[in-house]
Amino acid sequence: MGTATHVGSAPTPALVFEVLTSYQRSAALHAAIELDLFRAIGDGPGDVASLATQVGASERGIRILCDYLTIIGLLTKEDGRYRHSAASAAFLDPRSPSCIASTARFLGNQLMTEPFQHLADIVRSGHTTIPGEGAVEPENPVWVEFAHSMAPMMAPMAAPLGAIALDGLSGPMRVLDIAAGHGLFGIEVARLNPEARIVALDWAPVLEVAKGNARKAGVQDRYETLPGSAFEVDYGGPYDIVLLTNFLHHFDKPTCVGLLKKVHASLRPGGRAATLEFVPNEDRVSPPMAAGFSLTMLAATPSGDAYTLRELEEMYSQSGFERVAAHPVPNGPHTIVLGHAGTPAWR
Amino acid sequence: MGTATHVGSAPTPALVFEVLTSYQRSAALHAAIELDLFRAIGDGPGDVASLATQVGASERGIRILCDYLTIIGLLTKEDGRYRHSAASAAFLDPRSPSCIASTARFLGNQLMTEPFQHLADIVRSGHTTIPGEGAVEPENPVWVEFAHSMAPMMAPMAAPLGAIALDGLSGPMRVLDIAAGHGLFGIEVARLNPEARIVALDWAPVLEVAKGNARKAGVQDRYETLPGSAFEVDYGGPYDIVLLTNFLHHFDKPTCVGLLKKVHASLRPGGRAATLEFVPNEDRVSPPMAAGFSLTMLAATPSGDAYTLRELEEMYSQSGFERVAAHPVPNGPHTIVLGHAGTPAWR
Repeated sequence: MGTATHVGSAPTPALVFEVLTSYQRSAALHAAIELDLFRAIGDGPGDVASLATQVGASERGIRILCDYLTIIGLLTKEDGRYRHSAASAAFLDPRSPSCIASTARFLGNQLMTEPFQHLADIVRSGHTTIPGEGAVEPENPVWVEFAHSMAPMMAPMAAPLGAIALDGLSGPMRVLDIAAGHGLFGIEVARLNPEARIVALDWAPVLEVAKGNARKAGVQDRYETLPGSAFEVDYGGPYDIVLLTNFLHHFDKPTCVGLLKKVHASLRPGGRAATLEFVPNEDRVSPPMAAGFSLTMLAATPSGDAYTLRELEEMYSQSGFERVAAHPVPNGPHTIVLGHAGTPAWR
Repeated sequence: MGTATHVGSAPTPALVFEVLTSYQRSAALHAAIELDLFRAIGDGPGDVASLATQVGASERGIRILCDYLTIIGLLTKEDGRYRHSAASAAFLDPRSPSCIASTARFLGNQLMTEPFQHLADIVRSGHTTIPGEGAVEPENPVWVEFAHSMAPMMAPMAAPLGAIALDGLSGPMRVLDIAAGHGLFGIEVARLNPEARIVALDWAPVLEVAKGNARKAGVQDRYETLPGSAFEVDYGGPYDIVLLTNFLHHFDKPTCVGLLKKVHASLRPGGRAATLEFVPNEDRVSPPMAAGFSLTMLAATPSGDAYTLRELEEMYSQSGFERVAAHPVPNGPHTIVLGHAGTPAWR
């Protein structure tokens, strides 16, 4: 029975029951988003009868769903009326500029959730049950969904990433945005530096999303695209900055090192590579969101992982980078890791 | 945007991300139980390589799964070794007498989980997408699974329920156990009072499970069975005690009142009915486990609910009961509600 003992109050089975029914939390939020419930909550007045009319649903269903969302912290309830919690006001009301409700489409995508139905098999084999390369199979259409629906969650990271990537650099420069997706990171660099030219690399259908965002941001004249696989296409450097966001975690270490070598070779001396990653502490069990991300990579990829800073430093070092610095993104689970490609000769 | 404001520290999207990925918590625990991982954890030594060998799985899979279980509180990790948390030692190691790992089979049953794939539709219509009467469709085989797999979770409630149901009563008595399932509650009454005779009512295949448990407890000579629907069969009273555990929540109030009237009619004067229920507070959003149970009833039944004490009191009262008393079960989410069928003439 190991060394765990029941010191103090007796443990209760509540945690086990709660974990076994946790899938209901995801389902409840998906249902609320599908019903556009958070818009109705924002509109008020928030009583069951009004909400049921507003979203076209039954009173029984609305009352039970809203109670459940209150229990899990996504609404508040007072005198029988439901109102936004701080989290739902900021991140789930579709009129909030920081609304991330669209992330439900990617996070609830069948490709991402289905492997969890076979998780024991995946633990046995050590890799995803998705055929081929899993989520990173070439041209997987899930990345178009990612580019569309995850952009609002990534948007708050663009400003810190742009500032850190550009820190100390100015003037004309070329920037490669690998696995550009929605393109928001490269676009932010272009906005911050009007002399920066961006080359966005991703599958061709994904690049259509990035190009649309570049137009919206008014940087389309300095925005080129390079369709294809990051492992196969010629990057066409030299670059001052390479952005490599939300990408390394899909692959094993040798693959990451191979890619980082290619990145390093595309940089001019003094250039830098910036990765944005979930970076768990060396204990791999904290902080919860970054550390827990490994399970998603186990389920969805052949050999990906959430790498610790030490592991990322080793990969960068083995790929020829001279110096690595970590910058946790404020108020978020991500860390920006910057690799420097050696001091320019003139310094 | 309602009245919610961002007082104090800015809210982060972490809660939304956590809720959208909560289904992974259930999947991780199911996988660990399927792999018999908690037995291996109890055996030690708890390093990744040993655990992988013990359960016949990959090291990558075991490391990531064990890290995840640590993050959600179901294991501990120190110096790279995984050990039981208090909760997993007591409730997930198969050698623990209080192990409830089997509950995963009922709680993860397709019948219970599948409706959550269509929760928005269920909220719209107000009732389950399961055909017919949902989980309470006559002869639904899920109740044989319930009787087998939920018994360990219900077992700790048997002693308090038996004591409360029998409080102040002794001598020869007849006890009807409606929706007996595993039979543990009626069996406990039979153990506490050697002059009690039990009549267990449930679907015939479920009663086989209850009869097996009665034999194990050595009370089979005082244990009769009454196969069929609680709404249709003749109870054949009078009874001193009627047990009605985990049952009312499947039905709407008029149906509950109809059933309670039938129960009342089967009791002798001075008899009592004992229900075991998830009873949320009148706010319906606390305590979390009892209040959250309404969502399961929304998903799985046409019109069930987790009723508040006031609602249960009303139902009892409308059914002819004179007095109702609530007894929360210590260390658990359940409440025993006792309805008294009037003072006997001789008092």
